[in-house]
Amino acid sequence: MSEGMTGAQALLATLAGAGVEVVFANPGTSEMHFVAALEAEPRVRGVLGLAEGAVTGAADGYARMTAAPGVTLLHLGPGLGNGLANLHNARRAHSPIVNVVGDHATYHKQYDAPLESDIDAVAATLGPVFRSTTPADVGKDAAAAIAAAQDAPGSVTTLILPADASWSEGGAPGRPITPARPTRSSAVDDVASACRSGDPVVILLGGEGCREPALRAASRISEALGVRLFVETFPARLERGAGLPAVERLGYVPEQAEQQLGGARHVVVAGAKPPTTFFAYPGKRGDLVPSGAELHTLAAPGEDVTTALEELADLVAPGAAPAPAPAHRPELPTGELLVATWPDVIGALLPEDAVIVDETNTSGLLLAAATAGAPRHDVLSLTGGAIGQGIPVATGAAVAAPQRPVVNLQADGSAMYTISALWTQAREGLDVTTVILNNRAYAILRMELQRTGAGDVDPAKAGLFDLSTPDIDFTHLAEGMGVPASVANTAEELADRFRRAVAEPGPHLIDARIPPLL
Amino acid sequence: MSEGMTGAQALLATLAGAGVEVVFANPGTSEMHFVAALEAEPRVRGVLGLAEGAVTGAADGYARMTAAPGVTLLHLGPGLGNGLANLHNARRAHSPIVNVVGDHATYHKQYDAPLESDIDAVAATLGPVFRSTTPADVGKDAAAAIAAAQDAPGSVTTLILPADASWSEGGAPGRPITPARPTRSSAVDDVASACRSGDPVVILLGGEGCREPALRAASRISEALGVRLFVETFPARLERGAGLPAVERLGYVPEQAEQQLGGARHVVVAGAKPPTTFFAYPGKRGDLVPSGAELHTLAAPGEDVTTALEELADLVAPGAAPAPAPAHRPELPTGELLVATWPDVIGALLPEDAVIVDETNTSGLLLAAATAGAPRHDVLSLTGGAIGQGIPVATGAAVAAPQRPVVNLQADGSAMYTISALWTQAREGLDVTTVILNNRAYAILRMELQRTGAGDVDPAKAGLFDLSTPDIDFTHLAEGMGVPASVANTAEELADRFRRAVAEPGPHLIDARIPPLL
Repeated sequence: MSEGMTGAQALLATLAGAGVEVVFANPGTSEMHFVAALEAEPRVRGVLGLAEGAVTGAADGYARMTAAPGVTLLHLGPGLGNGLANLHNARRAHSPIVNVVGDHATYHKQYDAPLESDIDAVAATLGPVFRSTTPADVGKDAAAAIAAAQDAPGSVTTLILPADASWSEGGAPGRPITPARPTRSSAVDDVASACRSGDPVVILLGGEGCREPALRAASRISEALGVRLFVETFPARLERGAGLPAVERLGYVPEQAEQQLGGARHVVVAGAKPPTTFFAYPGKRGDLVPSGAELHTLAAPGEDVTTALEELADLVAPGAAPAPAPAHRPELPTGELLVATWPDVIGALLPEDAVIVDETNTSGLLLAAATAGAPRHDVLSLTGGAIGQGIPVATGAAVAAPQRPVVNLQADGSAMYTISALWTQAREGLDVTTVILNNRAYAILRMELQRTGAGDVDPAKAGLFDLSTPDIDFTHLAEGMGVPASVANTAEELADRFRRAVAEPGPHLIDARIPPLL
Repeated sequence: MSEGMTGAQALLATLAGAGVEVVFANPGTSEMHFVAALEAEPRVRGVLGLAEGAVTGAADGYARMTAAPGVTLLHLGPGLGNGLANLHNARRAHSPIVNVVGDHATYHKQYDAPLESDIDAVAATLGPVFRSTTPADVGKDAAAAIAAAQDAPGSVTTLILPADASWSEGGAPGRPITPARPTRSSAVDDVASACRSGDPVVILLGGEGCREPALRAASRISEALGVRLFVETFPARLERGAGLPAVERLGYVPEQAEQQLGGARHVVVAGAKPPTTFFAYPGKRGDLVPSGAELHTLAAPGEDVTTALEELADLVAPGAAPAPAPAHRPELPTGELLVATWPDVIGALLPEDAVIVDETNTSGLLLAAATAGAPRHDVLSLTGGAIGQGIPVATGAAVAAPQRPVVNLQADGSAMYTISALWTQAREGLDVTTVILNNRAYAILRMELQRTGAGDVDPAKAGLFDLSTPDIDFTHLAEGMGVPASVANTAEELADRFRRAVAEPGPHLIDARIPPLL
């Protein structure tokens, strides 16, 4: 089979052999032979994005919902650059990603042609980089990149593919490499002592610690010993809803997080990093571990947090059962659509087995409470703080889980970074309901301007935070890309539009007009 | 004045002192004090972009049309990443750009907070990088960055501004530094000998060589000695039209460029790099200097090409006058809108003193001929091959030259990378007419698939090149962002819509529906 196989064909065969079924792509000339090989490989489907931020965010959403790596195809350095922000979010999510980045033919690089740039340096800021120089390298390098992406806890890797390594014959599929599994925690006894000390203990869950088995173990510990539980502020994938333990997220606003962690004598991180503020603020501490409290690492990212929590629970809470959240939905609200009311519409109407992609920013402060007792669902959040993740991640999640309804709750300002991902939703007929929380402002910056004490400027008047001159009509944008859309000005209208959107197959967008928080 | 001045205020004062009147911005929390200082500095205006590709492309367009540097404000590594593709184009245009990239406070970096990434490594792929660590550094570093950006031939520089260096007091405006001027050519005599040899000579003009004084000098040489002239394939800013020497661009397709340079015994580059193909193709040479021809560098980028051409002309063509293009407009075409007909509409109706932003790709093959005798105008082209430049560059050009009509001739696929720049055009009331050449395909990739010989795939059937499922309705997209829009299906309709768009102030978009080249 490898007789006469090009590098590109060897790459596709290696990907397919590793279980990759989808490549999210925005190709260019240097990737033509990859495209030809992709068209000829029935096991792998190409999903086109109109801009690389849509492509990389979709690969992240896909990786979060599957065991397989998210694979992208990008066009040289500028393609990687356009995709960098959502790859940053994927890196923070520990999503296994393999970027295939085309490059000029090896012998063409000497000319410093217009598209030449330092791909290697940019890719190295994300994770491991592989560069094939001959077609014989490509399969091996691809297998190594796939394994490196999947090494616990998951990384963003890049395979740079020169055009001549891609088009020349002499390729062979790479032999699959078993990725490194999570290592065993050695801190279970230490944390058990802290839990039994009688002092106040907080456990902060992250990574795999936000999935059902870990949550159940953590809940047993909490039930037995009164240990307080939180999940990290921006989990890659949090399982929650009726029947699962309800664990609050650590607050984004430092004062809220300080209050949540206040009085703790022991702070235990389990799959999460030690808690710090998102930004620095003048005169504020960045470290959120309370003064005088002891920090314990039950499991760092890359360690087996689920087993560690289960072992800990067996030690300190042998007889305890987890506490499932009761099924409970809020009443449907009426009247004006407000930050305080719109989440109840979602809580009341969220379909079974939904995936929520949460990029609500300031508009979503009450979302978690409103959906805590809704049917079981996953929440994918903005892991790296690079806004513009929501629409692409929802797109990739829907490709990964076509049988599940995806609900993207999406701030308006953030939506505009990667709005073209709506087109991919229409093209692929994905079952995504996008609710734009449209407050016509960068409301979070109004809040942050106040919080950073940057002075004499009235946040509501700062021109650079205003998105209302002119107003953006999201229904026009959606319809222009083939996604049916509607407007909701009241709670009743949002309920009506949301019910219809989730009932119909394919993508929908609802422009929910709410006042800004500030 | 520097008493109690913060780093941010020192930065703004330094920018304003260097003549900077505009900052193209997409800020975040770490940039709040810069925003507050900007709101308080009457000499500098903030222009908001909804995504960083719009911001950096606008700064490039602005820099191409003014003597001042284009300044951006970007939010940490992800903001720089999103802006990287158009900064790549700016680097290839030799546009002087200063990126101000906010960073976490110096003491916050230890926490590896979610938005932390290696800004320095990414910025270093573009050009010189400055990182201020104290407020006292900021003014000095800003002055150094501005000078480095303006050192001939112009560079993309980055000033990384930690939040605490920005918000703390102790800043002072940086003393302006005189940038390095272009160096004198030492090759005039050598090139004069070649020109007088009687052998066939080609001069390839680039950079400042595409502006009026250099074009006139080159035209004198051509008139006197029959030397053939070309401008580089993708000039940053080409002055042309009736009354100026008409110089053909070197072709993008290698066979065309080979034919243009064919038979030359001497190839002289003047402000341009030696000619090479854009991409490598299997079995093709990348070097476009004909075998056996001698390459002469009259002026490399960064050398004073205008003076060198004028000295050369005085030596070899003392009595010759330049040959101005005659005023001539094509007839208005009728009937179906085709790749062969739409350019004549533009040629017939181009307003006086226009700026054309050309991202037509495959649809624009006949544009140069159709506009050669139109009233004098500038052409800004896709210098670095990173598509998605047109709408932002047009935006920045219109900010720089508010009295000139800007005409953005824009391929559909390329438009979708940075479509949100239309919103900035509406917000700022910019006089930009965008004509979408809408062929519902990545037509250039269909062409390149054939050219690279990537085999058995029918280009017209390759799903990854198809933009028609679903069709994108650009009038909806434009109107959703406050830009009036219309459709043109025939040459008559395009003429009607174009006439009206250029007659009315403010931005307009015309969705011109044409068949793809392939």
